[in-house]
Amino acid sequence: MAEAPVVHLVGSGPGDAELLTVKAWRLLQRADVVVHDRLVGKEVLDLVPATALRIDVGKKPGEHRFDQNSINALLAELAAPGRLVIRLKGGDPFVFGRGGEEALYLLRRGIQVEVVPGITAAFGCAAANRVPLTHRGVATGVRFVTGHCREGWWLELDWKSLADPATTLVVYMGLTHIEQITSRLIEAGLDGATPAMAIENGTQENERSLRAPLGSLAEATRDAAFRSPVLFIIGPVVEVLHNPAPLPLEIPDRHAAWIERVLHA
Amino acid sequence: MAEAPVVHLVGSGPGDAELLTVKAWRLLQRADVVVHDRLVGKEVLDLVPATALRIDVGKKPGEHRFDQNSINALLAELAAPGRLVIRLKGGDPFVFGRGGEEALYLLRRGIQVEVVPGITAAFGCAAANRVPLTHRGVATGVRFVTGHCREGWWLELDWKSLADPATTLVVYMGLTHIEQITSRLIEAGLDGATPAMAIENGTQENERSLRAPLGSLAEATRDAAFRSPVLFIIGPVVEVLHNPAPLPLEIPDRHAAWIERVLHA
Repeated sequence: MAEAPVVHLVGSGPGDAELLTVKAWRLLQRADVVVHDRLVGKEVLDLVPATALRIDVGKKPGEHRFDQNSINALLAELAAPGRLVIRLKGGDPFVFGRGGEEALYLLRRGIQVEVVPGITAAFGCAAANRVPLTHRGVATGVRFVTGHCREGWWLELDWKSLADPATTLVVYMGLTHIEQITSRLIEAGLDGATPAMAIENGTQENERSLRAPLGSLAEATRDAAFRSPVLFIIGPVVEVLHNPAPLPLEIPDRHAAWIERVLHA
Repeated sequence: MAEAPVVHLVGSGPGDAELLTVKAWRLLQRADVVVHDRLVGKEVLDLVPATALRIDVGKKPGEHRFDQNSINALLAELAAPGRLVIRLKGGDPFVFGRGGEEALYLLRRGIQVEVVPGITAAFGCAAANRVPLTHRGVATGVRFVTGHCREGWWLELDWKSLADPATTLVVYMGLTHIEQITSRLIEAGLDGATPAMAIENGTQENERSLRAPLGSLAEATRDAAFRSPVLFIIGPVVEVLHNPAPLPLEIPDRHAAWIERVLHA
């Protein structure tokens, strides 16, 4: 058994500790070491035993205390047979979390990696704000991109392809560049009236959100002084469940008969 | 308190009961009524109290026992003050689950809707098979589409836009049309050698998976006699953590010194 060293790469979900998976919840309560990001909530960290070693390698924006190579080496150093080492990442480890890079480093050095998925911010925010990311007749799919600028790479995003009114677009880490992102999408053909939403501190107690058409999303976010972490959801799905027009509850006879049968089966 | 009728729209995750959120886990154990899909696992349903009413409205492929309107009406009929009604859906309620349609029906009729997100199949399968859906230098984003054919609508997918080598493509419910999907992607410019993967019964005990280049994915899936539910992941991320080349574990001095400081802080 516990012979090979293992690192557990665990998603902590969007913030609300209740949105951890049961698997992550149980692992955290048995952890020997937890290496975590800045975005992991306090309630989540409170699950970790007081005797466990907790290491915060969170990067604050603009202040790179820990580079990725150091974190990789730290995880390798901590991994040992019989020791439950958890690398706890906000959201899901494999979506914009550099979990793949950490896993690759460890696997190449003979350290096993177990991955526990997490609720990514898009799903947490969509549920909390009742935004169906796909919706028949409105959005056939959903797409996640990052607006984070790393070595100018994001600027190579294919704006033409992103400006698809039938695909919900979710932008992670887009606050700094939201002005450019919205301008480029509109230049590429997306209607400036497309409904959009910004969510700050999604699913946490201090969550704030606003809705604005794409053309004024950047301004609205600036006016509201939103601060990181902010998630943007762009597409007509933002309005689907917002202030829906009331209808009377009338159950047609054929459904009523069916419901009777189901309830008394 | 409990005056307004409420329906809880809850994601059951990809199959493994341990991948439920803590919130869903707790709600299920207090449920009065659970209306569930075919794809919800037995272990998950076993959490529901024996005294609760369970209604399976799962649609088997090709056999539409319950149409969406009947399910909507059933939920409205079941909702009552003080009664914990759970509409349990595979994966996440807002990704290809028609959760938006059910929520809209209920909200328009004055019934409140609370949404609990779930781990969608893409994240469950990615974690279980160590496929980072985004990876620096490989995939800048990820995109979810459905290959399910509803009134010919999916054929309107923008293949040119989908054939983006820098965006991981995840296809839900694509088994029936995988031949067409792969052909169209290749016609639209995606390299037939692009790594791809098919996962059957993802995260469940009977999970099977295979890897094949895009050009032979349909054939490989057919040869292996995969049956629904199958998820496809298409993009170079499929190979990133697969059989990585070994490297010696050498911690550079500057990292070692840093690790010493962190561990003894």
